[in-house]
Amino acid sequence: MKKTTNHLKVSGLVLLLAFAVTSCSEKKHEETNEPVTKSEFNLTNAKAEIEAANKEFMAFVAAGDSVGLANLYTEDAKFMSAGNPAVSGRKNIQSAMSGIIKSGITRVDLRLIDVWGTEDLLVEEGDLSLFVGDKNVSEEKYIVVWKKEEGKWKLFRDIFNSNQSAK
Amino acid sequence: MKKTTNHLKVSGLVLLLAFAVTSCSEKKHEETNEPVTKSEFNLTNAKAEIEAANKEFMAFVAAGDSVGLANLYTEDAKFMSAGNPAVSGRKNIQSAMSGIIKSGITRVDLRLIDVWGTEDLLVEEGDLSLFVGDKNVSEEKYIVVWKKEEGKWKLFRDIFNSNQSAK
Repeated sequence: MKKTTNHLKVSGLVLLLAFAVTSCSEKKHEETNEPVTKSEFNLTNAKAEIEAANKEFMAFVAAGDSVGLANLYTEDAKFMSAGNPAVSGRKNIQSAMSGIIKSGITRVDLRLIDVWGTEDLLVEEGDLSLFVGDKNVSEEKYIVVWKKEEGKWKLFRDIFNSNQSAK
Repeated sequence: MKKTTNHLKVSGLVLLLAFAVTSCSEKKHEETNEPVTKSEFNLTNAKAEIEAANKEFMAFVAAGDSVGLANLYTEDAKFMSAGNPAVSGRKNIQSAMSGIIKSGITRVDLRLIDVWGTEDLLVEEGDLSLFVGDKNVSEEKYIVVWKKEEGKWKLFRDIFNSNQSAK
């Protein structure tokens, strides 16, 4: 009987050990998946967020709101405009935006083509059309590098050029 | 004596159990660090690799080698040249490069400013100067999106524009 008791104790411990090992291997499985969870960044969602930011951009151009436009850029952004040296920082970008609005641009159509990247940095490729009133004055292409600032995707680098020769 | 033997057996199992748990917690520690190892992508090394690729680019321009230049781009690259629609694919990029060489460009100076990204996608910001013989004909800025193809960083998106107005 004592042997049986000890046998039970031992069996119990073996079960406990088996449980510990199983539990360990389950933990291992969970933890192996951790980087997957980390990289479960959803590019489709991010793309939708970029599309939404682009809608805001278009609305601010239509409203002639250079402050609203500048706030869509990160504090340390660069606006790499064609025909001008790069403009650094939100304040200077606001001046550049003010200049563009004063030049008569009333509308920009941004058309996202694709996005790539991670939750830390997104690259967007797109096409854009510029309008003065109803007149399409330029067809261009662009690359925007987006970074999150205070939880919102903001333009970090913005470069574009014309599809037509200036000549 | 039998009791002692059983006691030893039980103690042994307890030790084994303790070892299993310790080993499990050590494993846990290792695995928690796994994403760190994964993200131990070295941006400084990547930057040096991009600088090396840029040197190759400059050498191919100097040699008037449009095939060499095109091979620095990914198979599915886009060359987003100022004053032209985007050119897609290595074959078309080779034609564009051939056109640039025939236009008289003998030298390009590429100056990397910064890189961002991961092992899957790098973004480079830089400045460039174009020369016809000894004459600096254009000062420009660029963004290149780099992707690895067959273990080598290649240009995936290449966009640039002039710092001077075309007027």
